Amino acid sequence: MQSFPGGRLPHVGFDIKLKAYAEGVDMRMAELLPADVEPAKLLHEAMRYSCLAPGKRLRPALAMACADAVGADPWSVLDGGCAIEFVHCFSLIHDDLPAIDNDDLRRGVPTCHKAFGEAIAILAGDALFALAFDTLALGPWGSDQKVNAIAALTKASGSQGLVGGETLDILSEGKKIDLETLRLIHAGKTGALIAASCEIGALLAGADEKQCAHLYEYGACIGLAFQIADDILNETSTSEQLGKAAGSDRERGKATYPALIGLEASREEAFNAVSKGLVHLAELPNAGFLFELAHYSVERLN
Amino acid sequence: MQSFPGGRLPHVGFDIKLKAYAEGVDMRMAELLPADVEPAKLLHEAMRYSCLAPGKRLRPALAMACADAVGADPWSVLDGGCAIEFVHCFSLIHDDLPAIDNDDLRRGVPTCHKAFGEAIAILAGDALFALAFDTLALGPWGSDQKVNAIAALTKASGSQGLVGGETLDILSEGKKIDLETLRLIHAGKTGALIAASCEIGALLAGADEKQCAHLYEYGACIGLAFQIADDILNETSTSEQLGKAAGSDRERGKATYPALIGLEASREEAFNAVSKGLVHLAELPNAGFLFELAHYSVERLN
Repeated sequence: MQSFPGGRLPHVGFDIKLKAYAEGVDMRMAELLPADVEPAKLLHEAMRYSCLAPGKRLRPALAMACADAVGADPWSVLDGGCAIEFVHCFSLIHDDLPAIDNDDLRRGVPTCHKAFGEAIAILAGDALFALAFDTLALGPWGSDQKVNAIAALTKASGSQGLVGGETLDILSEGKKIDLETLRLIHAGKTGALIAASCEIGALLAGADEKQCAHLYEYGACIGLAFQIADDILNETSTSEQLGKAAGSDRERGKATYPALIGLEASREEAFNAVSKGLVHLAELPNAGFLFELAHYSVERLN
Repeated sequence: MQSFPGGRLPHVGFDIKLKAYAEGVDMRMAELLPADVEPAKLLHEAMRYSCLAPGKRLRPALAMACADAVGADPWSVLDGGCAIEFVHCFSLIHDDLPAIDNDDLRRGVPTCHKAFGEAIAILAGDALFALAFDTLALGPWGSDQKVNAIAALTKASGSQGLVGGETLDILSEGKKIDLETLRLIHAGKTGALIAASCEIGALLAGADEKQCAHLYEYGACIGLAFQIADDILNETSTSEQLGKAAGSDRERGKATYPALIGLEASREEAFNAVSKGLVHLAELPNAGFLFELAHYSVERLN
C-alpha cells in the first residue's frame, strides 16, 4: 500500500463513524422525502425507492466531515448532506435511463425505470432535483449561507458540472478520446458534486473563504480518485460485488482510465489524486476524519 | 364577451408592453444561457434551442407585472422571470419525451428530442432546471428574498407541483377521472408555476406577506384559466395555429376540460376562474397590467 503525505491518522472507529453518518442520512432522507401517499403515490414511491436503497452516502459523509474539520458540529449540516444525496440519486436515475446508459441494475436492485417505468423514472429524478434545493432553502442556516450553498450545488449539477460531464461521456462513447477529455468527463460526472459536497459542508458550517476553497480542492481530488477507482472496479469486479453489471463500461465503448492508460497506471493516478487532496487539509483544525475518507475512496483498490 | 368584477382597465399599449417584456426576457435568457461552445456544445445548443424558440413568456410577464403591481420596478425582477421560464422550458422538454407525451412539435418547431436526440433532451432539461436555481441564487436581490423565491420555485416545480401534476396526468391517461382529479392535475401541471411566478415577482420586489399571498392566489386562478383555454384550443384549433399537433389530447385519452364537461361549460369555467382571480387585485396600488394579463389568458377563447 502507498503512503500519503501527512500520513494516515489512526482513527479508531472510522468505519463506525462512517456507518453512523450514513444511518443518520438515511433516517433524515426518509423524513424529507414525500410520504407514500396519493395523489402522486407512484412518484413518491419511486423517489423513496431510489434514495433509500442502500448506499455508501459518501457525499453527505464528506459534507459532515468538512463541518467537523473546521470545528463545527457535523450534524448541523445533515440536511445539506441529504440535499447533495438527492442530487446524486437524481443523476443516477437519469443516467440509468434507456436513452442514456440503459442500466438494469443499481446498488443490487432494479434501476428506477425498470421498477417503475421510464416516465415515472424521469419525473422522480426531476422531483428529487427540486427536493434538493427545497431542502437547502428550508434548512436551519442563515440566508447568506443557504444562497452560497445553493449556488455551489447548481454549479456542480448543471451544464458546467454533473450534466455537462454526462453529456461529454455519452458523446465520447465508442470514440477514441485523450486523457485530457477523460479528466474533463470525470471532473464533471463525479468530481464536481464531490467537491461541492465538501464546499457545501464547510459553507453551511460557517467556515471562512480560504477553508472553503481548500476543502473544495480536497473534494475535487478525492472525487477524481473515487471515479478512477470505480472505473477500475467496473473492469475487475464481478456483477455481484458491484451490485450492477460488471464490465459494462468496456462493452459500451465508454471512456475509462483502465481503457486509456491500463490498470496499473490507473491505480497510480488514483493514489496520486488522493495525495494531492491531502495537502489541502494541512491547516484545518480537525481533519482526521477527512484523512480517513480520502483513504477510503481508494482503499477498495488495495 | 363576458365582463369581470372590477372591469377591464383600458390600458393603451397592453400588447406593446407584453411584447417588450417578452423581448427583454428573450435577450436576458440569451445572456444567462451557456454559450454554444465546447466541451458540451451540443448540450448548450439544445438548451438555447428550447429556451429561445418563440414563446409568449407569460410567466415572466406575470412576475414583472406583479412587481409593477406592488409599486416596484418590473425590470428589477427580470432575472426571476428568466429563472421561471427556464423551469417552464425544462418541463416542456421532459414532457415532450417519448416516454411521457411523445410530442414531435412544440411552438412550431421539432421538440428537443426530435432535434437533438433523447439523451441530450433529458440532460438539457436537467441543466435548465439547475440554471433556474442558479439564476435566482446569483440574482441582484437580498439573500432572504432569494431564499424565499427559491423555496417558492421548488414547491411549484417538484412532486407537489409541476412534476406531481404531470405524474397524475400520465397515470390518468385513458382512464375515466372526475372533475376533482382534473382540477388537481391542472393545478399541478400549470397552476403551480403560474401562481409561483406571481408570488416570486412580488417576493423579489419586496412586497409584504399579504400582497404575496393575494398575488399567489391571483396566479393560481389565472393558471387554471390558462390551462382550460389550452385544453379548449387543443380541441378546436388547427395544428398550424397551435404550433403543435391539434387534437392530440383527445387521441391520447388525456383528461381535459372539454372531454369531461364539454366546450361550453369549459369556457364558462375559464371565465369564472379569471373573475375569481381579479378579486385578489383589489388592494394593490398598480394592478392595471395584471387585469389585462388576466383577460389575455382567456381572450383566445373569444
